[in-house]
Amino acid sequence: KPAAAAVPEKKHKEKKESKKKFVLKTPKGTQDYTPPQMAIREELFNNIKSCFKKHGAVTIETPVFELKDTLTGKYGEDSKLIYDLQDQGGEICSLRYDLTVPFARYVAMHGIRSIKRYHIARVYRRDNPVMTKGRFREFYQCDFDIAGEYDLMVPDAECVMLMCEILESVKVGNFVIKLNHRKLLDAIFAICGVPADKFRTICSAVDKLDKMSWELVRKEMVEEKGLDGEVADRIEKFVKLNGHPRTLMAQIRAEKLCDGHKDAIATLDQLDVLFTYLEAMGCLDRVSFDLSLARGLDYYTGIIYEAIITESDRGSVAAGGRYDGLVGMYGNTEVPSVGFSIGVERLFSILEEEAAKKKIKIRQNQTEVYVCQMDRDINITERLKIIAELWKAGINTEYMYRATPQPKKQIEAASDAQVPVMVLIGKTELETNSVAVKNMATKQQEVVERSQLVAKVQEILKSIDQSQISNLFK
Amino acid sequence: KPAAAAVPEKKHKEKKESKKKFVLKTPKGTQDYTPPQMAIREELFNNIKSCFKKHGAVTIETPVFELKDTLTGKYGEDSKLIYDLQDQGGEICSLRYDLTVPFARYVAMHGIRSIKRYHIARVYRRDNPVMTKGRFREFYQCDFDIAGEYDLMVPDAECVMLMCEILESVKVGNFVIKLNHRKLLDAIFAICGVPADKFRTICSAVDKLDKMSWELVRKEMVEEKGLDGEVADRIEKFVKLNGHPRTLMAQIRAEKLCDGHKDAIATLDQLDVLFTYLEAMGCLDRVSFDLSLARGLDYYTGIIYEAIITESDRGSVAAGGRYDGLVGMYGNTEVPSVGFSIGVERLFSILEEEAAKKKIKIRQNQTEVYVCQMDRDINITERLKIIAELWKAGINTEYMYRATPQPKKQIEAASDAQVPVMVLIGKTELETNSVAVKNMATKQQEVVERSQLVAKVQEILKSIDQSQISNLFK
Repeated sequence: KPAAAAVPEKKHKEKKESKKKFVLKTPKGTQDYTPPQMAIREELFNNIKSCFKKHGAVTIETPVFELKDTLTGKYGEDSKLIYDLQDQGGEICSLRYDLTVPFARYVAMHGIRSIKRYHIARVYRRDNPVMTKGRFREFYQCDFDIAGEYDLMVPDAECVMLMCEILESVKVGNFVIKLNHRKLLDAIFAICGVPADKFRTICSAVDKLDKMSWELVRKEMVEEKGLDGEVADRIEKFVKLNGHPRTLMAQIRAEKLCDGHKDAIATLDQLDVLFTYLEAMGCLDRVSFDLSLARGLDYYTGIIYEAIITESDRGSVAAGGRYDGLVGMYGNTEVPSVGFSIGVERLFSILEEEAAKKKIKIRQNQTEVYVCQMDRDINITERLKIIAELWKAGINTEYMYRATPQPKKQIEAASDAQVPVMVLIGKTELETNSVAVKNMATKQQEVVERSQLVAKVQEILKSIDQSQISNLFK
Repeated sequence: KPAAAAVPEKKHKEKKESKKKFVLKTPKGTQDYTPPQMAIREELFNNIKSCFKKHGAVTIETPVFELKDTLTGKYGEDSKLIYDLQDQGGEICSLRYDLTVPFARYVAMHGIRSIKRYHIARVYRRDNPVMTKGRFREFYQCDFDIAGEYDLMVPDAECVMLMCEILESVKVGNFVIKLNHRKLLDAIFAICGVPADKFRTICSAVDKLDKMSWELVRKEMVEEKGLDGEVADRIEKFVKLNGHPRTLMAQIRAEKLCDGHKDAIATLDQLDVLFTYLEAMGCLDRVSFDLSLARGLDYYTGIIYEAIITESDRGSVAAGGRYDGLVGMYGNTEVPSVGFSIGVERLFSILEEEAAKKKIKIRQNQTEVYVCQMDRDINITERLKIIAELWKAGINTEYMYRATPQPKKQIEAASDAQVPVMVLIGKTELETNSVAVKNMATKQQEVVERSQLVAKVQEILKSIDQSQISNLFK
């Protein structure tokens, strides 16, 4: 077995001595990614990255751990899930829990007043992993945020639009973007008679409606959180409302559901502006205005939204919102911000399932040419000269790491590697200073002068569709 | 200030209340990377990645932390530099110290018998950082390794060749690859009369010759490590030898320096095979056969090599060797391996210095088009429609996040962003259902039918060299 490719093999050579037993595993909730998995992931990341770049985003990188103080007081009761580094003398640090808090710290620390950035990196949560559903303790997030003072709903609309573009481009099925506004939710709570000091805790209860029935959520509100039963019933009427933004908006106005509450009316007017922008960009029909959407995080201050793949049970695959107060927690300057995070592990697990179902054979590398010697007596240096020439021309080339390889084994290896081109040398070719070049798609083989090698290979490569992972994103 | 770009600004709005002071910094030895730095890094990584792919390598990913036991006993006295995670209940874990040990663990755990993989990721060392020289506590490594049973020196030659190709492609100046063989070094120690149990400690002393004079190294050997002074003097004769592989080999053989020592002669013969392969691939002249090269790590068992940029004081920028015993430490199967690691932070710091010296203005994003409205009265939705159309066509487009922006401010923003194309709409264009498209390189502006927008923009983009970081790798 030559060159690349992981060949799992269970049979081991036994060693004479037994040795100290290592536990051969990765830590709980983490995993290795194998070459075929990496090929899918690379494709997915490139796809998402090009969407971010399409919107002119720059990128930054922050350390994988932050001073513990930087994370403290940002995640509410989820803070218990933060990984701490051991105190080995020096500063007390923790692994980052998300990319939003490090971003806010970055903006404050570098005195930035406006930035549109994406950040693709892993984050860490000591949660109970459900690895088959794409839930890990170490996982990637792909974040996009626009920070800066801009006009009402303009960056917000771009974020929703970009989320649509990404989900359309990754081809994981039909999706809907649920959208609501934190200020509208608070206004509704006020209209229903929720005491102001219970807004956030009732908001947390509403957030569970995607996993729990209204009856259970109502029970939590009334029995655990001490809400008046009649108030809860009034909330029910609102949180059951969802639909096309224009339709629901018309209904709310027609039924005068928010009349008399100034903040609610103002927020509805703002949402109308957003809907108009989304309509102009052609993505309003992807959105469901959903009064039950609450989002767990405390720091949201404006629109909140999350994307659901309609045929999947994986929950939300992307989510975000406006958070105007977070940067100000690190300094004296408020920098209003809006953004979202793509839950790329869930997308990845959908794509992997898809590839397995369709039995797509995933190419693990991008080798274009395999160089074979058709006679065992030929000196390996003849292949090395050819290979070096192809490498120099920027052509991805492999050969068998044997000094005197069997022709048959090389042909098999080339075929296993799914290379589009094979270059062959035999004694005749050496004597006539030529090489044989075979197009693996057409099976046509041609003998060309040695000096024409690179040109001939490039000609064949140009004629071939080299899409690495067929059908996955097409 | 619109859209992208980090705008550092020192002036802060004062807040009424003072608040709890955060220490606004990243942990010691770590740093943020800003958008211009990321632009250089992305270019550098893409360059290195394409070299790895040229050789048919696959890629893998492993967790950023491993079980502590996995790392124990692999790094000798450097183990004290390992970052541990706090024991929060559950497994005891440490941040990875390099990518080689996780690779060996991966190969053993997945029962792999042959793989050629690259891995680009950050590693962690609680060292004393010298950040100005590109030495950090959190830093990237780019590793390439070939694991598997192959013919003598064949994968080894490919590794040396690939290291040359990478350093040539990144344009950081002239370089030399010092090369030696662990078995030759051991044989030389034996010839000189070093007791077998002192081989590794004397090897460590020799390893310091690139930073210390022979006199100091000799002192360490004799006074600290108890070596006989005459033995040390015999070692001196050898470790001062270096030169072109063919020349030094001829000298060693002519002066019969290793005669009578079977292992030495056998290793020299093996090195001759390597030199022949490197010559066939055209990279032997990059190599200096250097008997003083020792390499710190204990696990090397065959060739060892490291690359030095000749005009820089940054020490080695890439290093590696053969390690046939490491995978076997995790299981019952030995999988002989050879590889190397690129010290990409040092390359990055050279490139950054270079860019600063040449005053290269680095583009932080890849925006191609900026859409402006030349009349403040035009409704923003007109721009949104244009922008959505350009995004849909895959064109990187930005606009100003203002509902009624001033024409002048938009032109300035477009010019700041160094976009190659500007699209402009005024009242005339709206009335005549047309748009103005300006080629920013030629300054030519043309009014086209609205339906021709995308085609016109694509035509201009095709005509422009869009190399992001000019001159850096060219």
